[in-house]
Amino acid sequence: MNQDYIKPDNWSIIEEGFDAESVKSSESLFSIGNGAMGQRANFEESYTGKTFQGSYIAGIYYPDKTKVGWWKNGYPEYFAKVLNAPNWIGIDIEINGENLDMNACTEVTDFRRELNMKEGWYNRSFKAKLKNGTEIAVNVTRFLSITLDEVGIINYEITPLNKDAKIVYKPYIDAGVTNEDANWDEKFWEPLEVKHIGNEAFVTAQTFKTHFKVTTFMHNSVLENDRNLNLSPTNFDTSADKIQSSYAVIVAQGKKSSIQKIGGYTVSLNHANTLTAAEKVIQSALAKGYDQLLQDQIDAWAKIWEMSDITIDGDVKAQQGIRFNIFQLNQTYLGKDSRLNIGPKGFTGEKYGGSTYWDTEAYCIPFYMATKDQEVARNLLTYRYNQLDKAIENAEKNLGFKDGAALYPMVTMNGEECHNEWEITHEEIHRNGAIAFAIFNYHRFTGDYSYIPEKGLEVLIGIARFWHQRANFSKDKNQYVILGVTGPNEYENNINNNFYTNYIAKWCIDYTYEQIKKVSLEFPSDHKRIIEKVKLAEAELQEWKKVADNMYFPKSEELGVYLQQDGFLDKDLVPVKDLDPSQRPINQKWSWDRVLRSPYIKQADVLQCFYFFEEHFSKEELKRNFEFYESFTVHESSLSPCVHSIQAAALDKMDMAYTFYLRTSRLDLDDYNKEVEEGCHITSMAGTWMSIVEGFGGMRVKNNALHFSPKIPKEWKAYSFKINFRGQILKVDINHSETAFSVDGTEELTIVVNNNAVVVSPYNTVTVK
Amino acid sequence: MNQDYIKPDNWSIIEEGFDAESVKSSESLFSIGNGAMGQRANFEESYTGKTFQGSYIAGIYYPDKTKVGWWKNGYPEYFAKVLNAPNWIGIDIEINGENLDMNACTEVTDFRRELNMKEGWYNRSFKAKLKNGTEIAVNVTRFLSITLDEVGIINYEITPLNKDAKIVYKPYIDAGVTNEDANWDEKFWEPLEVKHIGNEAFVTAQTFKTHFKVTTFMHNSVLENDRNLNLSPTNFDTSADKIQSSYAVIVAQGKKSSIQKIGGYTVSLNHANTLTAAEKVIQSALAKGYDQLLQDQIDAWAKIWEMSDITIDGDVKAQQGIRFNIFQLNQTYLGKDSRLNIGPKGFTGEKYGGSTYWDTEAYCIPFYMATKDQEVARNLLTYRYNQLDKAIENAEKNLGFKDGAALYPMVTMNGEECHNEWEITHEEIHRNGAIAFAIFNYHRFTGDYSYIPEKGLEVLIGIARFWHQRANFSKDKNQYVILGVTGPNEYENNINNNFYTNYIAKWCIDYTYEQIKKVSLEFPSDHKRIIEKVKLAEAELQEWKKVADNMYFPKSEELGVYLQQDGFLDKDLVPVKDLDPSQRPINQKWSWDRVLRSPYIKQADVLQCFYFFEEHFSKEELKRNFEFYESFTVHESSLSPCVHSIQAAALDKMDMAYTFYLRTSRLDLDDYNKEVEEGCHITSMAGTWMSIVEGFGGMRVKNNALHFSPKIPKEWKAYSFKINFRGQILKVDINHSETAFSVDGTEELTIVVNNNAVVVSPYNTVTVK
Repeated sequence: MNQDYIKPDNWSIIEEGFDAESVKSSESLFSIGNGAMGQRANFEESYTGKTFQGSYIAGIYYPDKTKVGWWKNGYPEYFAKVLNAPNWIGIDIEINGENLDMNACTEVTDFRRELNMKEGWYNRSFKAKLKNGTEIAVNVTRFLSITLDEVGIINYEITPLNKDAKIVYKPYIDAGVTNEDANWDEKFWEPLEVKHIGNEAFVTAQTFKTHFKVTTFMHNSVLENDRNLNLSPTNFDTSADKIQSSYAVIVAQGKKSSIQKIGGYTVSLNHANTLTAAEKVIQSALAKGYDQLLQDQIDAWAKIWEMSDITIDGDVKAQQGIRFNIFQLNQTYLGKDSRLNIGPKGFTGEKYGGSTYWDTEAYCIPFYMATKDQEVARNLLTYRYNQLDKAIENAEKNLGFKDGAALYPMVTMNGEECHNEWEITHEEIHRNGAIAFAIFNYHRFTGDYSYIPEKGLEVLIGIARFWHQRANFSKDKNQYVILGVTGPNEYENNINNNFYTNYIAKWCIDYTYEQIKKVSLEFPSDHKRIIEKVKLAEAELQEWKKVADNMYFPKSEELGVYLQQDGFLDKDLVPVKDLDPSQRPINQKWSWDRVLRSPYIKQADVLQCFYFFEEHFSKEELKRNFEFYESFTVHESSLSPCVHSIQAAALDKMDMAYTFYLRTSRLDLDDYNKEVEEGCHITSMAGTWMSIVEGFGGMRVKNNALHFSPKIPKEWKAYSFKINFRGQILKVDINHSETAFSVDGTEELTIVVNNNAVVVSPYNTVTVK
Repeated sequence: MNQDYIKPDNWSIIEEGFDAESVKSSESLFSIGNGAMGQRANFEESYTGKTFQGSYIAGIYYPDKTKVGWWKNGYPEYFAKVLNAPNWIGIDIEINGENLDMNACTEVTDFRRELNMKEGWYNRSFKAKLKNGTEIAVNVTRFLSITLDEVGIINYEITPLNKDAKIVYKPYIDAGVTNEDANWDEKFWEPLEVKHIGNEAFVTAQTFKTHFKVTTFMHNSVLENDRNLNLSPTNFDTSADKIQSSYAVIVAQGKKSSIQKIGGYTVSLNHANTLTAAEKVIQSALAKGYDQLLQDQIDAWAKIWEMSDITIDGDVKAQQGIRFNIFQLNQTYLGKDSRLNIGPKGFTGEKYGGSTYWDTEAYCIPFYMATKDQEVARNLLTYRYNQLDKAIENAEKNLGFKDGAALYPMVTMNGEECHNEWEITHEEIHRNGAIAFAIFNYHRFTGDYSYIPEKGLEVLIGIARFWHQRANFSKDKNQYVILGVTGPNEYENNINNNFYTNYIAKWCIDYTYEQIKKVSLEFPSDHKRIIEKVKLAEAELQEWKKVADNMYFPKSEELGVYLQQDGFLDKDLVPVKDLDPSQRPINQKWSWDRVLRSPYIKQADVLQCFYFFEEHFSKEELKRNFEFYESFTVHESSLSPCVHSIQAAALDKMDMAYTFYLRTSRLDLDDYNKEVEEGCHITSMAGTWMSIVEGFGGMRVKNNALHFSPKIPKEWKAYSFKINFRGQILKVDINHSETAFSVDGTEELTIVVNNNAVVVSPYNTVTVK
């Protein structure tokens, strides 16, 4: 943990001073993205120190051949990998004949990075003394345009400080890139064509196997004191997969020289001819020019913040942390394209193949629903609808289900499973439940029922069929059981009757049954179309209901808690507080069998059920289960603290709630797990948002209304957040004495605060003590 | 399954006719070995068809770097692999300028292989017409000497049939060999020295990492009509890792030419200077000459058969099957060296790294005890004693145990774990029980208690400590439980309270406790030495006893059976007979999760307990448990049928017993699983022996006496076997009307037949109706 490395600031992430050992971590933290592409904060110029190069294009992946020690039936043969894309940011720089490389300079001073989250740009500046004695000042600004989302731009400025300098700028595009994490040292990119005209250059390459075609492009302008010199390149070096141009200038001491490089990708997902498209994209960018592109960027981010900002008064680190989380979520996914989803590392690293986990439904959708237009959450639901056929195929071909039962993959890019550990891939089936729950949650929050007859019902039917077939009747218990699963707590494998799984299975069937009935009454033509398509007879429905109505739930009457699984009470129930701290984290200190037979819990499991279905249980039940299970929870998943924080707040355990909140909000900025160099924990960032809004703010949606029960950690003076509820933006300002509600819109909004209805009218802040 | 491919014969394995598609399978079936080395039946001359090259040296292995998809704490970094050793059998042959290659001949006729099990040699003969029109007859005999166990010999005869022939023999040694099954395409052998003198040549190489040094040698003599021509090689071709000499002869039509090649290995495990040793070994072999070496071989095998033969009258395929099993077991392990053990593929293939599984203790030791001198079984026990330190280290460093608790590896070569699936490696801990049971079984059978105070007690204490620490107290059950294990039925993983594991855990503690008390009384100085060495206090013993005395065993009072594990009765209990045959074998047709939640059993689990501890249970209990569990058993392990065969015989289900017997005895000869090309199933062959002796013959050892309850399958006329019991060889002849007992020795032997004592005197066959 490095709590003091990143400088506290309300709106920016700031690093000061050059530390070669921190380069890889900072490359993650200062990553930029615009939903369509993203990149780690690699240096533009050459760097021979330790670095982890990464540029990523949304939706572009490669099926890496599966590598396992022992093959188990049902494993997929390929694993869709996040792919390191061709590099367009590179600019080699020669200063008086010497290649600029911070790792080789005799001195580097005044090094500073800033990621300006308010305006959406990344800046790096430093002074360097080269071996040849030339001293220079460098200032580089880079951003990926949100308005022109195939374009990024770099403004690279050099000022010779102690003498005149001959500067040669050598910007390049390189498709000869590899992944750090690949199973078989295969090449992923096949170069197709290299082309240049004037200041423009293009490398077209396609991925092996998946055949995504990508044109990576650049356009370069060299300026002196911000005046375009209209230089043409003196030279082009080309190879099969790389092109590099050269611009030479003589710069007087103290004068500022710069190169502006426009770059990016056009991809065959969006264009029939990626090369022509790239030429057009460059023209659009040039027509705007650097200053206008930057202003557009600032405006676009202002709009994003307008809807999604959270302010925290009196705690700059907490303020910086929550904004970093909101910023990264928006860099990763903007919701424009239902083919995309939210990868666990976003565009900040390549670890974990695939882009989509149940994190999206369980943790991310609430954030996007409340901070974007409803179309964004609907696109995330549609993503699963579009992959329904593959989920059915997966259940049938790999796992032996039938008649349209669907099991969504644990991890996916294109609908196919991307993970190979039987205990996860084949047994962590509760993910299917979260996908159904998200449909319910979307309707609950937005009030938009149309998604269900249009698309959602088919997904629900596939999922309900899966649960019906997956449960079996236990003669011994005279009830239905679900054997051999892994629950959300992945520190238990192949367990029987995981309470969470059994509960959500029953809920899925019941909810689907209700929706079928509702659609048949309210949308009869959709009902007819769907029932014919999926061949669903009333008799099958009655079979489902038998399972749902007779589902077994393990519990302890004595302790008054549901049991995480059968046999949980056989464990050696030593609470975490009595565990020798030298043994933690247990997933690093203990062999896997020891983790499994211990009572320790990685992330909310029974409590995840209480989170999703809070209103099904009494507060007393929540309290007993929370106190029992939290005492065994080691929170070794970044997704763990948020649910506990929300529940602790609901139970008036505000100190505990605040401690949990702190654990996530600066997880990456303070590098708690010493792994941020691999990339940031994007999906858990949505949990941080939930901790504030649902936890401290106590926001819920019940009966088509927003409910709040505002609380505030004693460490803060005040905080505020905004909720986009059914087209109106509600702003909530909370301090220690009162909460103020105001609405941005033209209609009044009735909310419920601490169980009392409150009418919030436009232009009229309502204060509740 | 290819039931008619191998010709039925009482004493030989015979293949007739050349089938290129069967070459790899026959290479396995016709493998030869002498306990110290072994080799697949690869052709000596060039062969461009499909082949799987394999020569193996006992005790020589390579630590292959572990390859897994997802690393789990506690996995070993390396995996000891059976290593393909340098090839010394190769002889390239030129006939009138054309290289002999059966795959390139215009015609191959009269192809025949014979593995003569009675005499221990392998012969191959064929006629071939080469592209150049020359027709030849070839006859090759090869064996690995049992008396000089570093030596093998080949007599390769060629007779030109239709014209005179210029024959060039080009025998070679090649250390440039690789494994088919390796994780990282690494080279395993580093060549050190190549040397030749006269007709002798030597290649010395060492394994990377393990640094076993091996000199592979050859000596060649060329003969005409069995007369040594005393030729010297005309040429030597050498490279860094290969040497090849040439001998040219002109052979008249109809005359027989031959080359005799002596070859083999001297290894640094046995010699300080392997090169000098190789020179001496060649001299010893030459001093004997081919004919005497062959006669010694015949004599040595006669001695082996004298003690271990089983005859079956009236069923030649069953006769051939059981002899093949006994022959292969003796080829694999002769018990001379306590550093060696019985690999699952013996010297017939390289699949599965490591050499030692719990198969040795559970299945092989009974065979070796009854068919060899007791020293052999004692060597197998000593193998584990010598690896005790590593078992303690494994438990401590990898798995978090302490104070001298020992967990033996699932698979090992040198005491270190060679397997990486957490559900097996870390959870299939019952193996520790079999290792303790073998100590008990050795004493029960041989009456030799000395092993326990000398060595066995330390092993028992390490194992008892493991069980004591591995169990935990369940407040819920108010008993000790063992959570998170895999039982002998590997179709269940991470289960709680596997009956077999809990039972053997309790038994290990109780047995160890008794032995400590006995040794303290009868061998006080050993007791003192051991207790001081292992630091065992009486208080710790009392803690052990608490666990043993309060161990929990799952059972169903209603069904009158012990439960394989907690929750077994929750399964969908469809017996195997009602399972759609298209779904079998389930381990090939079903995904792993489906296998796990099914009730289907791979091999005896609860019934393994009834096998080991038969006298602890009533026949009625055996019957109920057998009938319940066998109905769910799919027998998808080669180790499964034997235990069931023995129990079916005990329950007078002779048809069932015979069916189980058939399943194993010709498993490889008839290639039931279509995988014999990978090698033979060596360890399960001991189970076949058990099926006859303990199953049909009903042999048990109780109170220092052999007990029998002879039965005979209706398909046989008669059968006989021999038991080496405490220095006397008892022969048992069983037919449908009576059983005859005779003893080879000077003292009378009291046995118990169908619960009646019978005295068998030397030179006096006793017959029991």
